[in-house]
Amino acid sequence: MSAERAKVVVIGAGFGGLRAARALRGADVDVILIDRCNYHLFQPLLYQVATAGLGPDQISYPVRAILRRQRNVAFRMTEVTGVDLDRRAVLTTSGAVPYDFLIFAAGAETNFFGMEGVRKHALNLKGISDAIAIRNHVLRRFEEAVLEGDPAIRRALLTFVVAGGGPTGVETAGALSELIRLVLRKDYPRLDLNDVRIVLLETGPRILSVMPVDLSSAAVTSLAEKHVEVLCGRSVADFDGARVTLKEGEAIASRTLIWAAGVRAVDLAMALGVPSGAHGRIPVEPGLQLKGHPEVFVIGDAAYLESGGLPLPMMAPVAIQMGATASENIKRALRGEKPLAFRYKDPGSLATIGRDSAVAFIGGRRFSGLTAWIVWLVVHLIQLIGFRNRLIVLINWAWDYFLYERAVRVITGE
Amino acid sequence: MSAERAKVVVIGAGFGGLRAARALRGADVDVILIDRCNYHLFQPLLYQVATAGLGPDQISYPVRAILRRQRNVAFRMTEVTGVDLDRRAVLTTSGAVPYDFLIFAAGAETNFFGMEGVRKHALNLKGISDAIAIRNHVLRRFEEAVLEGDPAIRRALLTFVVAGGGPTGVETAGALSELIRLVLRKDYPRLDLNDVRIVLLETGPRILSVMPVDLSSAAVTSLAEKHVEVLCGRSVADFDGARVTLKEGEAIASRTLIWAAGVRAVDLAMALGVPSGAHGRIPVEPGLQLKGHPEVFVIGDAAYLESGGLPLPMMAPVAIQMGATASENIKRALRGEKPLAFRYKDPGSLATIGRDSAVAFIGGRRFSGLTAWIVWLVVHLIQLIGFRNRLIVLINWAWDYFLYERAVRVITGE
Repeated sequence: MSAERAKVVVIGAGFGGLRAARALRGADVDVILIDRCNYHLFQPLLYQVATAGLGPDQISYPVRAILRRQRNVAFRMTEVTGVDLDRRAVLTTSGAVPYDFLIFAAGAETNFFGMEGVRKHALNLKGISDAIAIRNHVLRRFEEAVLEGDPAIRRALLTFVVAGGGPTGVETAGALSELIRLVLRKDYPRLDLNDVRIVLLETGPRILSVMPVDLSSAAVTSLAEKHVEVLCGRSVADFDGARVTLKEGEAIASRTLIWAAGVRAVDLAMALGVPSGAHGRIPVEPGLQLKGHPEVFVIGDAAYLESGGLPLPMMAPVAIQMGATASENIKRALRGEKPLAFRYKDPGSLATIGRDSAVAFIGGRRFSGLTAWIVWLVVHLIQLIGFRNRLIVLINWAWDYFLYERAVRVITGE
Repeated sequence: MSAERAKVVVIGAGFGGLRAARALRGADVDVILIDRCNYHLFQPLLYQVATAGLGPDQISYPVRAILRRQRNVAFRMTEVTGVDLDRRAVLTTSGAVPYDFLIFAAGAETNFFGMEGVRKHALNLKGISDAIAIRNHVLRRFEEAVLEGDPAIRRALLTFVVAGGGPTGVETAGALSELIRLVLRKDYPRLDLNDVRIVLLETGPRILSVMPVDLSSAAVTSLAEKHVEVLCGRSVADFDGARVTLKEGEAIASRTLIWAAGVRAVDLAMALGVPSGAHGRIPVEPGLQLKGHPEVFVIGDAAYLESGGLPLPMMAPVAIQMGATASENIKRALRGEKPLAFRYKDPGSLATIGRDSAVAFIGGRRFSGLTAWIVWLVVHLIQLIGFRNRLIVLINWAWDYFLYERAVRVITGE
């Protein structure tokens, strides 16, 4: 790397950061990409790791392998502890990394809204270890249920509550139901499936609120066919590991609460020292820069920007598009040009409920059932990084589809 | 299950216990198979999980899925705490399980020979979490080496010591070398591979001592071509996480000691309350029964039995054949017949060193190089449980062979 070239530091190798780093390929800059993990995680399929359908290695890909052919990028696996905006340096556990331009793409973490019991006892779905913890937890409850003599305790062991009616909650509840009713049924022939209960809780009046009402209804119908109880207008107040208490006064005896009810920008966002907006996100200028710091870009879940009067959603497509814009604006700055304002092109939204069943809202058109499911399959397969991952995921999906199996029904935690 | 039928409890779903349970298919007994894990682990390929070649789910298979079609067996995932020989009951953390016949197949654990420093700081290769710990550890040392300015520390980070010149140690050292020299080389273009050192230590005068001398030599040559230093007549005295001290006085600055130098029967074997022999193994009668307890069979790594004046090795083929004999002897006992004496049929031994290179000693014939390597591939693929696992392992092997890759270069631990 040359000393005269501008140094671009990218924090985070998620969808946004990775796209930003790749978009700088061939540019006259030196890029340093920092992440505390050595892999890029394809989060949209994480729920399939949690429900024993895929192995974690099939949806993660080493960052160094992705960037192998890009000469102007170096990767550092280290923990970022802060950003010194005045000195223009990223502080990490392995020293300070100076920058000329910074792209802050540190992403989001689970938001428990200050509920300590939920934070302590609930499972969440952000990283690989979270997904494996869910898989282990669910399979363990079945092993315990087999040995349990008390019918009330057995029912509590086999009751699974998913909080959050967004795509993650819907997909997790649907996949969990299929894991249990299509596959575990064969593993536990002596268990009564009538004891199994899967409850999906949504605070608002309907699930998948980003989609049109009729697609929400289609999702509810499809979930009901899979024996998932959808309860709208219900919020979790507390969870002690044995009982989910709702704000509406009810309680559900359950050992499992999967929390998919909210995310917030990572705590690190506060390190930028600017007041954060909703969900801890950092307000940015139209060009994605921090106010008063045109050399600092904040993108993805960490950034707060409105479009058409509404905040942009905390979703992969926003992060990816912002990554491209931030890199473009760095190139423009190097040429002395003004930054482009970010414009979000909504690619639509998709959620799968299970076999042959999904809902999709793309370009104003609505799809449900088998068509949406095939769209979902193709879109996700294409987006996976690495041809081997695509091939193995496809084999796993085909196998599970035709043989009603799930490959990874193993409890591997300590 | 009928109350009048004899109850056979099998402890352990490894090679021996699983074979014993399956051999009782159709017999007029009720079988209860107990393991603390819910999967059967194909240990011979565990070193490939440790060296990023395979995912853990590809070499583990749910016990319930294996036994799904066998009506007379029930599986319990629970921890065995002891055996009450007088009351004829297995004690577990979820209650006592009475038996008429017991097959004790609890296997072996790593033997650190009382060296506390080694036990605390070294990595071992018994279970899935051990293998993932090795993978994470090795990849982390590379990430640290990239950021390390001090050349001496960097060399220590890149020095990997494997203790034990048996098949496990040889295969691990060979696979580690290929991971580094064929794959990580591409991930870390700025690291000097001359700093990398892989040392294989063997206490005895030669590695692979169960094989003929010329095959040991062939293995040493092949390892040398892969830049593995083989040091025979060297024993580890201590390891503090930074320095491997040898009994012969030397010391090797290294952050990594992979311990493949010994196994011993699990502590649980002591629960049988009989004096144990070498490596904590329990002496058994020729029919594999505990002396004075013809209803209790001890098989596999937990059993001590001699053949031709030598103790039977602690290896999968012995366990599998013992499982078959124990089940046969239970059927004979139910018919009032005397037990058969166990006779071990040695299927030969195999060890792979890497691409196109292995050594095999089968039926008195010696193979090395490509022939032995192909034999090794076929034998291991056939023995894997589950056609999907076989297919995916085959794809992974072919991919890695032709493209010089390893799929699972991800650091997933917390």
